[in-house]
Amino acid sequence: MNGADVLAEVLLANDVTVCFANPGTSEMHFVAALDRKPELRCVLGLSEGVVTGAADGYARMTGRPAATLLHTGPGLANGLANLHNARRARTPMINIVGDHASYHLPLDAPLTTDIEGLAAPMSNWVRRVNGSLDVGPTAEAVYRASLSPPGVATMILPADAAWGEVATPSPSRKISIDAPRAPDPQTVRAVASAIRANPGRVAMVVGGTAARADALTIAGRIAIACDVRLFNEVLVAHTQRGLGRVAPVRIPYPIDLALEVLKDVDLLVLVGAPEPVAFFAYPGKPGRLVRDGCTVLTLAKHGEDLKGALEALHDELGVKRTQSLQLITPNGNEGYPVAQLTDDAVAVIVAHKIPENAVICEEAITSGRRFFALSAFAAPHDFISPTGGSIGDGIPLATGAAIGCPDRKVINLQADGSAMYTVQGLWTQAREHLDVTTIIFSNRTYAILHAEMRNVGVASIGTNAQRMLDLDNPPIDWVSLARGLGVEAAVATTCETFSTLLDAALSRHGPFLIEARV
Amino acid sequence: MNGADVLAEVLLANDVTVCFANPGTSEMHFVAALDRKPELRCVLGLSEGVVTGAADGYARMTGRPAATLLHTGPGLANGLANLHNARRARTPMINIVGDHASYHLPLDAPLTTDIEGLAAPMSNWVRRVNGSLDVGPTAEAVYRASLSPPGVATMILPADAAWGEVATPSPSRKISIDAPRAPDPQTVRAVASAIRANPGRVAMVVGGTAARADALTIAGRIAIACDVRLFNEVLVAHTQRGLGRVAPVRIPYPIDLALEVLKDVDLLVLVGAPEPVAFFAYPGKPGRLVRDGCTVLTLAKHGEDLKGALEALHDELGVKRTQSLQLITPNGNEGYPVAQLTDDAVAVIVAHKIPENAVICEEAITSGRRFFALSAFAAPHDFISPTGGSIGDGIPLATGAAIGCPDRKVINLQADGSAMYTVQGLWTQAREHLDVTTIIFSNRTYAILHAEMRNVGVASIGTNAQRMLDLDNPPIDWVSLARGLGVEAAVATTCETFSTLLDAALSRHGPFLIEARV
Repeated sequence: MNGADVLAEVLLANDVTVCFANPGTSEMHFVAALDRKPELRCVLGLSEGVVTGAADGYARMTGRPAATLLHTGPGLANGLANLHNARRARTPMINIVGDHASYHLPLDAPLTTDIEGLAAPMSNWVRRVNGSLDVGPTAEAVYRASLSPPGVATMILPADAAWGEVATPSPSRKISIDAPRAPDPQTVRAVASAIRANPGRVAMVVGGTAARADALTIAGRIAIACDVRLFNEVLVAHTQRGLGRVAPVRIPYPIDLALEVLKDVDLLVLVGAPEPVAFFAYPGKPGRLVRDGCTVLTLAKHGEDLKGALEALHDELGVKRTQSLQLITPNGNEGYPVAQLTDDAVAVIVAHKIPENAVICEEAITSGRRFFALSAFAAPHDFISPTGGSIGDGIPLATGAAIGCPDRKVINLQADGSAMYTVQGLWTQAREHLDVTTIIFSNRTYAILHAEMRNVGVASIGTNAQRMLDLDNPPIDWVSLARGLGVEAAVATTCETFSTLLDAALSRHGPFLIEARV
Repeated sequence: MNGADVLAEVLLANDVTVCFANPGTSEMHFVAALDRKPELRCVLGLSEGVVTGAADGYARMTGRPAATLLHTGPGLANGLANLHNARRARTPMINIVGDHASYHLPLDAPLTTDIEGLAAPMSNWVRRVNGSLDVGPTAEAVYRASLSPPGVATMILPADAAWGEVATPSPSRKISIDAPRAPDPQTVRAVASAIRANPGRVAMVVGGTAARADALTIAGRIAIACDVRLFNEVLVAHTQRGLGRVAPVRIPYPIDLALEVLKDVDLLVLVGAPEPVAFFAYPGKPGRLVRDGCTVLTLAKHGEDLKGALEALHDELGVKRTQSLQLITPNGNEGYPVAQLTDDAVAVIVAHKIPENAVICEEAITSGRRFFALSAFAAPHDFISPTGGSIGDGIPLATGAAIGCPDRKVINLQADGSAMYTVQGLWTQAREHLDVTTIIFSNRTYAILHAEMRNVGVASIGTNAQRMLDLDNPPIDWVSLARGLGVEAAVATTCETFSTLLDAALSRHGPFLIEARV
């Protein structure tokens, strides 16, 4: 047995059963080891942004880390942007980055790079394997690091550690992961007391597992009983929503709207979320979204028992378990749009048709801004979206979610500009026959940047700005592009055709792409 | 005038007239500044690997740096793999990476990243602008750093430095760049003496500007007169070759072949190239390609006057300027292939049809291994290829070369697996109407990895390895994919159809893609 075999065994012993991969020569011994373990499912991405984004989507939906397999520094580099999103989503992930044999590094062969330097900014944990006997201990450590608390953990596997023999390997064992830390009673009492002291002026932001349906039910009861306004983060890693579920308001992305919704808040309570701040700085505008003098208290942080903390707060506040949630759950819908296909029309039609228990992935940027508000009445579903502001995550996230949840329909609401960074992921959806419906909001521009140009005071843009902000020349033919990658596709230009195409896509299993010309 | 305007002015004053860009919000003030400078050509890439690879191709062909414009850490990260190739090619390049306003960084907004940490491994020089008054000095410094010696220079531009007013900007001036260092007479004498002492056992490796036609002529005379074998590096950043030009042998990529061609060498002379080493380590095989005991001497290094050093050596050795080059220039050709389209057939047909003064870009990996040998008789042309071992550089390099050389045909010989990392570059070729013919070697597999699996002793591969190494399910439909991105395309399955399609592509201006089913 060699080091690569030990690594595969440790992964399998700990229920890490999927490896998203884009391997190269230095990883061949690990590829050979994986080939001896058919129960570990290997999924190829044709570019590494697909690999890391898919591992993120998989882990968000399953709670279990996937492994990634990346080829030396450049392979890792290509995957860093979506590792950044995963790190900001606090996703458990195990990156396995191959490197030259340790004794080959001093020769500075062309692919030699500072892998630790590249990995550190987007990883919560990095370690290089020190010889084949260190593969087992490092594999156990990377698994533990990926889960306690959940985060991005990266191990660097030199080729000679992978191919080196391990004469008497320890039997692979299940690593025990500590349970999340229980809520601190003193903190709970302090938050409860502050809530009581600020009637009508309290807001709560829920993130992480506090944004799941069961925790939201508790937060919702608190919100109604104690007049607390409930918010999701600006960028939502994973929440559960729809009819019958407590519906927080998402803090708006545009700075002026965000300041407006939080302007009357005297006490902000954070549950598994950092304090919301402006996405970017703008001259003359504040960076913090709450006003100066607003008290910000953290009930519980990422890695702690968020639902337990909400329960403790609920009890401390004397909220009844029978508290009605009617005021904070969706009712009614937006009617059914006809004729012209707009961003909002797509959102409402999708909301009407979301199958129960579907997974909605949203990287629609400006086109998706109102989806959350317009779709509250949809059938209960999970919602995931990119969290680090690095675009090019939607197609990979949807790909990974579909592998993690093979029995659930995945619908990816996808901006066209963002889609182009990792469009290669459509091929993986075709290869794995994943049940993903991709809806491209085809507006042929980086619409967000046009808005930002206005924000910096540019009234009318010229040739160079157009050349950098518009995607209309040539227009991307999404049907042809998707078919080139093995995914069936069609174009919708009206609400009626969009509606018909969406019905067709949802009634069958497998990938389909709809170019919605908005 | 603000900091962004100052930056644009310094670039233009120094003949940096092209900016390959994928901007985001934090770069909007610089985008606005570029919009006020229409003489600075902005070229959009839909993913950052296209941006950095194109800047590399542009600079290789023009000798002048292009600017890149990248959006914070993730935007830079997406471009790092091709920065790695550029760094290994010793290409001059100016990266402008936008960042949050300096005072916004402590808030740890979602896009906050360690940009210096990400940039350092793939840059020769990194500096963060410290306020708007520092934009001018940093812009001058980054320009100088990109050229003396040529390399990848990265400046980080915080948004507030871009938007901050510069009340009394210094007039932008042309920065003087020191000429390359002249050859050291003592080194020249020592190399000459060593060459004389090892008759018939000397090899010379030429890289950088020593691989251009005029320098090769001098190297060729030395080679014939002194019985020196002349080699290109394994990965050739840029050379000039074809009929009438001195034709070095390319050091083979496969380890066993490389060891074989260098096994009788007692003295290796390096001119603008590092000592060749094995691309990867293999158990039981050496890392250095020359045998133990071989003397390795460096005549001149990157950044020195390589042609001048060759001239000095030539004179020191008493070589005549009338020395015939007949023995080291190509003669005859390979005939004209018919029927079955193979890697070699594509190479030979292309070689027959290369227009004079064309630019050949080659990222054909296994499919291109024999192109160099098979195309020596072609019309004189420039040849560029990825240099750092990071795949996904061919389409971007060809894109940048076409922008740098608008009057020359560019032919990109492209492996299918590698093409998929940066296929987005086809759209830029369509948008800019670039005269690039892309030839996809469509073998539907990572062929190099199959060979490497055999190298690690795997006789027959199983399901998992197949799932990671083969691209045949689904097959990529290159014609559909290219058309989706605005590039006309067609399939060739025989030598005859390939020949006809290539004639058609070469007879017109603009991008065209041929899927060669090999």
